[in-house]
Amino acid sequence: MLVNITHARVEADEAAERAEELLPYIQSLKEVAEVADFEAPEASINLPSDLALREVVLALHLEVERPNLKYIFLIGIGGSNLGVKAIYDALFGYADSIKNVHAPKIIFVDTNSTLLLRSTLELIDSSIENIDEFLTITISKSGGTTETIANTEIILEALVRKFGEGVYERTVGITGEGSEYEKELKTKGIRTLHIPKQVGGRYSVFSAVGLFPLLLAHIDIDELLSGALNMRNLCLDETFSENIALQSAISIFLSNKNGKTINTNFIFHPELESLGKWYRQLMAESVGKREDEKGNSICAGITPEVSIGSTDLHSMAQLYLGGPNDKITTFINTAGDQDSIIVNKERIINNIIPELGGRTNKDIMDSIYEGVKAAYSKGGRPFIEVLLEDISPYEIGAFMQFKMMEMMYLGRLFNVNPFNQPSVENYKTETKKILSEK
Amino acid sequence: MLVNITHARVEADEAAERAEELLPYIQSLKEVAEVADFEAPEASINLPSDLALREVVLALHLEVERPNLKYIFLIGIGGSNLGVKAIYDALFGYADSIKNVHAPKIIFVDTNSTLLLRSTLELIDSSIENIDEFLTITISKSGGTTETIANTEIILEALVRKFGEGVYERTVGITGEGSEYEKELKTKGIRTLHIPKQVGGRYSVFSAVGLFPLLLAHIDIDELLSGALNMRNLCLDETFSENIALQSAISIFLSNKNGKTINTNFIFHPELESLGKWYRQLMAESVGKREDEKGNSICAGITPEVSIGSTDLHSMAQLYLGGPNDKITTFINTAGDQDSIIVNKERIINNIIPELGGRTNKDIMDSIYEGVKAAYSKGGRPFIEVLLEDISPYEIGAFMQFKMMEMMYLGRLFNVNPFNQPSVENYKTETKKILSEK
Repeated sequence: MLVNITHARVEADEAAERAEELLPYIQSLKEVAEVADFEAPEASINLPSDLALREVVLALHLEVERPNLKYIFLIGIGGSNLGVKAIYDALFGYADSIKNVHAPKIIFVDTNSTLLLRSTLELIDSSIENIDEFLTITISKSGGTTETIANTEIILEALVRKFGEGVYERTVGITGEGSEYEKELKTKGIRTLHIPKQVGGRYSVFSAVGLFPLLLAHIDIDELLSGALNMRNLCLDETFSENIALQSAISIFLSNKNGKTINTNFIFHPELESLGKWYRQLMAESVGKREDEKGNSICAGITPEVSIGSTDLHSMAQLYLGGPNDKITTFINTAGDQDSIIVNKERIINNIIPELGGRTNKDIMDSIYEGVKAAYSKGGRPFIEVLLEDISPYEIGAFMQFKMMEMMYLGRLFNVNPFNQPSVENYKTETKKILSEK
Repeated sequence: MLVNITHARVEADEAAERAEELLPYIQSLKEVAEVADFEAPEASINLPSDLALREVVLALHLEVERPNLKYIFLIGIGGSNLGVKAIYDALFGYADSIKNVHAPKIIFVDTNSTLLLRSTLELIDSSIENIDEFLTITISKSGGTTETIANTEIILEALVRKFGEGVYERTVGITGEGSEYEKELKTKGIRTLHIPKQVGGRYSVFSAVGLFPLLLAHIDIDELLSGALNMRNLCLDETFSENIALQSAISIFLSNKNGKTINTNFIFHPELESLGKWYRQLMAESVGKREDEKGNSICAGITPEVSIGSTDLHSMAQLYLGGPNDKITTFINTAGDQDSIIVNKERIINNIIPELGGRTNKDIMDSIYEGVKAAYSKGGRPFIEVLLEDISPYEIGAFMQFKMMEMMYLGRLFNVNPFNQPSVENYKTETKKILSEK
């Protein structure tokens, strides 16, 4: 993975100064990595090397895996499903939406949408014949997530009605150790995996939350973790020119000080849209804070958005190039592409853009991509470039770890706690009041 | 459809003043509607009542419709596919991504993505047996859209290789009348439909661009157009309290003057995400302008974003409630829901959020929705509320017309041309240079 910040339009000496300020924090992160336990708020950086976790997940996988497994009902929302969805969609889900052949297919049951639930219930009714063809995974760290609890009731009820109480053996809970939810699940004989106390949802993709469903979907979690671990080590480097998480965090931070209130993640692969949505949560919840670490009111935050290249050039480029200069863009693309398709030199439709003949679709996409970067440069619009080798578990694991460490550095730069989400309680309190009064 | 701006936090007298200023523009829009031709830049408002258009589309539909039609390859990008995708996904596409039963299925071939193209080619290879099972629609108003031309070559080449030149009779082009593209298509015997000259891509959903593919996908275009026409008439009303497009435009405009640089479209139905993406283009291209109508440099614009409720409450709510107060939010929800599902009173997992027992999923979603609105109000975060009756062609048609007219009023308020997109040329010029030099 390559990261290039030369077009971020930040002052080199200001960046160096900020990097210097972060040295003690890098030191403390290194200590967290050395201890390799799960006590510090940054504990998630120890997940990729946690062999005990890997063993537990593999063991349960062995118990519930079936050759004829067709559907995984993944019931979870926010940090409990965005990471899995990011990886699954990149590798299988997007292609599957066109040709629908991959098995097992993960059905993401996140919100309490009628259409989502009705469609899932119809699928259970019409497309599942026996108990080995599905597995239900219900994920809630606190065990008190309204949507997840309601959806778990609705899905389990339908499955039990059709297949009997054996369904509980085809169900796995992932939750905080000793939570009320775990206790209740256990009364039905439902097996559970744990999320370490210090690992919050948006940093949990390399815990059981991510690994268990991904393994069931035939994704190489060793490659994923290996990419993450190598990236973690790189992003603990004290040298600014080596540490890409530090480079990206400082570029985004200084851009924000300079009026860039939006971070556009412009991804030139449609199958990575869910990866962008995972990053939306990571950035929005980590940096969007009413108060700083000392309790001063600051209302800090950068609004992350996702655009897909080249699709959204045809919807957003006019604003990006002509509108307010209020964005720091992160372009995300891949280097190679062995699978690209050539436009014949002998064209079917002649005389229209003749230079397309003999080009591959990747050539064309790359020309568009280079054209966009040139237009940004000429227009004084700042950007960071992230180039993945390819779209593989290794590179995606590396990318996610890179972004999670970028966020820890960003939290420190903004002087906010990147691991909590206190304002979320505001609407949850209101919702509970309404629910109990109804 | 109900629109409520009482929480938009704009001054009533300022709003009234702006509404007064727009009266002459409403008058001129009324004249456009009375003439009912396609000469004015606002000509798109005459599409819903254009009976001649309806006849042409129905006639071609009759010619190419087949009982065993399985796949529609819709090749187009931006304004050439976002409207169709918005409606198709709302009514069929989202549910289909879970249970995959609707036919014909529209495959949206927009960008030159390798995975998208490979998946589509595999589908052609493995899942189509004869020429009646597919129809290809290629859409480009100018006829010079790089991605669309390249994808049309690649898809047609694969189809012709498998099925021979009869494929051209299973292909329809939608383009500007007399364009080079039309001429080239005609040399192969490919039939065409036209986009009126004055109707730009983002306002074209009620032209052949939208109607023809939607009709093939079994969507009731008469209901769609009827919703649009009734809404158009409502949004030509000079009375501020009646004209919801005017209310919404003025609320967004005054919010923007007051530092709200982002318009969050927070939609409480996942199947409407593509409708949100359609609106992204509409707003980004219409208002994001470097220059005003007199050529003064202004870099105006509001960044539209889409969030899905309740899903994105678990990723974005922390930022929305705790971060910078820089957004005007449009909540979009539906009133009723006849299909909702009850959580049994006899719970499987007892003791966890006991108040869920006996509630329907819609009750729960509504409580969350009300909770969010209460938290926004308490936190001083402005919002507009749009409540659809249901998710039907009529209501979606009405919503899209409402938003297109909102955009015309917004253009006038910002003093920009909401029908052009000059800055898009910046990257296209660079791309062409790179493509021809490669």
